[in-house]
Amino acid sequence: MTGTGSGTDNDRFSMSTAPHRSVSHSQSLCRVALVGFGTVGQSVARILTAHPPPGVQLTHIFNRRVARKKADWIPADVQWTEDIEDVFAAPVEIVIELVGGLEPAGTWARRTLTSGRSFVTANKQLIAHHGSELQTLAARHGGELRFEGSVAGGIPILSALRDGLVADRIWRVSGILNGTCNFILTSMEDHGASFADALAQAQALGYAEADPTDDVEGLDARAKLAILCGTALRADVGPPRIAARSIRVVEAVDFLHARRLGCTIRQIAQAEWDAAEDGVLHAAVRPALVATDSPLARVAGSQNIVLLRGHYGGETIFSGSGAGGGPTSVAVVSDVAAIARQRAAAPVADARLTEVVPALASPNAARVPRSITGEFVTPHYLRFIVRDRPGIIAAIAGAMERHAINIDAVLQLPADSKDELPFVVTVERCPSAVLSSAVADIGRLDFHVQPPVDLPILGGPPA
Amino acid sequence: MTGTGSGTDNDRFSMSTAPHRSVSHSQSLCRVALVGFGTVGQSVARILTAHPPPGVQLTHIFNRRVARKKADWIPADVQWTEDIEDVFAAPVEIVIELVGGLEPAGTWARRTLTSGRSFVTANKQLIAHHGSELQTLAARHGGELRFEGSVAGGIPILSALRDGLVADRIWRVSGILNGTCNFILTSMEDHGASFADALAQAQALGYAEADPTDDVEGLDARAKLAILCGTALRADVGPPRIAARSIRVVEAVDFLHARRLGCTIRQIAQAEWDAAEDGVLHAAVRPALVATDSPLARVAGSQNIVLLRGHYGGETIFSGSGAGGGPTSVAVVSDVAAIARQRAAAPVADARLTEVVPALASPNAARVPRSITGEFVTPHYLRFIVRDRPGIIAAIAGAMERHAINIDAVLQLPADSKDELPFVVTVERCPSAVLSSAVADIGRLDFHVQPPVDLPILGGPPA
Repeated sequence: MTGTGSGTDNDRFSMSTAPHRSVSHSQSLCRVALVGFGTVGQSVARILTAHPPPGVQLTHIFNRRVARKKADWIPADVQWTEDIEDVFAAPVEIVIELVGGLEPAGTWARRTLTSGRSFVTANKQLIAHHGSELQTLAARHGGELRFEGSVAGGIPILSALRDGLVADRIWRVSGILNGTCNFILTSMEDHGASFADALAQAQALGYAEADPTDDVEGLDARAKLAILCGTALRADVGPPRIAARSIRVVEAVDFLHARRLGCTIRQIAQAEWDAAEDGVLHAAVRPALVATDSPLARVAGSQNIVLLRGHYGGETIFSGSGAGGGPTSVAVVSDVAAIARQRAAAPVADARLTEVVPALASPNAARVPRSITGEFVTPHYLRFIVRDRPGIIAAIAGAMERHAINIDAVLQLPADSKDELPFVVTVERCPSAVLSSAVADIGRLDFHVQPPVDLPILGGPPA
Repeated sequence: MTGTGSGTDNDRFSMSTAPHRSVSHSQSLCRVALVGFGTVGQSVARILTAHPPPGVQLTHIFNRRVARKKADWIPADVQWTEDIEDVFAAPVEIVIELVGGLEPAGTWARRTLTSGRSFVTANKQLIAHHGSELQTLAARHGGELRFEGSVAGGIPILSALRDGLVADRIWRVSGILNGTCNFILTSMEDHGASFADALAQAQALGYAEADPTDDVEGLDARAKLAILCGTALRADVGPPRIAARSIRVVEAVDFLHARRLGCTIRQIAQAEWDAAEDGVLHAAVRPALVATDSPLARVAGSQNIVLLRGHYGGETIFSGSGAGGGPTSVAVVSDVAAIARQRAAAPVADARLTEVVPALASPNAARVPRSITGEFVTPHYLRFIVRDRPGIIAAIAGAMERHAINIDAVLQLPADSKDELPFVVTVERCPSAVLSSAVADIGRLDFHVQPPVDLPILGGPPA
């Protein structure tokens, strides 16, 4: 775009602020222990040593078998250890956890917070399952819990919700939260690849793991959606209560049909409070058709996007890198910087105050929804693969009529064989449960070569 | 998208937190005076009375000729006044200024901050011209200055930069910051309208003012870009130092040519630190060609978008409503909420601390660039309207060659008349100043019906 190059030269960012090592006011110094020195951990250490936030000092790095991890660019006064007790025994104010998984990360989080220290993590499973409990621990003991890196990597969505959008009442959050699925689906879209080939390519390029279950089945996106339910919708929702559906049902032929409908296919995570019934939350992660001119369709490769709908502010959209060392480490170190700023402003937490005004301790206090359903009312796409014979459309139309579902269109692409004929029916807006019953009835008919596949069509006009 | 309706029912947001009137801890109570009760002011009052942030209470509303403004939905204990001295004499902790303009807003800001109180505003001109001075006043007297609503209305870009992205080093900020220009240009694109017709339509619909100078000439976007230079690039730049160019040069025919080049035309605000020369800032607001598949091209109507490029986190994109009572009031009340949270955590500012660690007082301390230039190195689009005769292309090519500029393509659409023939030349990447010299030379030739128009083409591959 310009002739000014790639922007990797750090010198132009040199600021007049003194480097942190010269900070002499001990009360304002925030010592940080980094637990986990993998890809993200190393990126975090790079920022903490090259451009530390004011008053922040990296003092400890923990990793298993730490000898093989030691890096010469880490300052000599940082202590390396493979014994977590060294971290807890040290006078550190913030523990950054980048190991992942529920344990031992959960135990470390509880020990850190119970001792009044602050805990920063990018661990989506830990926060999705135990965030609420950990937040309470933090508030009780005067520490902070922050986890910007756990959702949508480099997109500062949680801080936007807690700060710049905190005055709004967000009633819907949706988005693409899993870069692996998005990479697979965009490569099926771009190259007409089968699911298996696209997955193999993603694995070869390092975008998918050897066991892709968590990504492909929607479990990863579900954990992130649970965290967004808490922060955006103030709904306390455990990940198992969110419906998740695999993207494995999507075939290359679905992209051809989707294109004829002006759509493509993405894994969409979506949650919203019911407008009519108080305390009812709709939440699901599943493949869906989205209009090609919608922001969701334009998210390429491993990028992420989050769309918020607020009562006052309307729609706000955030997109950026969903993962990777650089973007995630920005989120993690920004959390550290926020805690350091807060500690500098209020060195001693005033527990008395948070008792009197509980909302101050936890302004995003979430409530448990009365009911959580994976049901959304949308138009739907149904793809059949059949042995062709007269009467198939009539049989399908009859089943739809019995469930009071209106057919919108029937689409057929040229096919090689009458023995394995794909065709598509689109239906007007109906609740997904009603559609499922109809599809189950239709699935019992005798002309199917494969079970029918139904996908919601998102992004149409509001109800 | 779902059957759950428009989401305008507030009841489902009812939280377990007590309404603010019951907060008894006086030290945590934040009294707020609202100065200006126009569109945004009324929206702010709606949120502050329907869903006040914890511990926040609206106590005063100031407006000229206040009698005609009084609204029955404002609680009876709120004091209405048309005398600003009532505001300064009252025990309010936060003054919200929504009057706009440099004065008397600037005087009010200084009085508020000098008395140790906090000042929240959506006044882009005030912040663009005097933000740095006011920030210093705030830090010195222990108050806060916040202005999220001054840039890109409902997009929480400033809080994202100060919180979730604070650990990154942002080197480029670009975007569409003026909804009026975007409305005019998208309506020229969609309907083939002339500039004059599109402007008249925008005025009729209330998207443009009777005197559209500030919007159309780029002065509004320039003020917002100056604020983003401070917050994103940490560059202290007065608006007059940013090059601004009118969108009036854009004609309907330019959209036809742009389309053939896979582009459309938008008013783009852009600033970046030079990668090679320390302290050199490139900054400009001007119409530009952008690829139709770029995020900039997809911003419709009066929406805004901001793109950030960080050294660590790569590209992050924010879009949403650029103006309007609802979105802007979310920004304003979110600022109020942030100040209230901070006051609750640290009722008395520790001036001693900020003296020892200046960066804590002003973590985004900006530096004055060594030089500021409106020059960017890009490919360019040149449109000529000529009386056709042999030798025109040769004359233009000769001038380009003398300035060492490479021609990329020559485009011509069918035209009615040889006496008024539009055609387009695109040239490869070159500095805008070099191109301007070449265009000046070409402009002196005798075949022009109108002066040539040159626009940068943005979004190509990086240098």
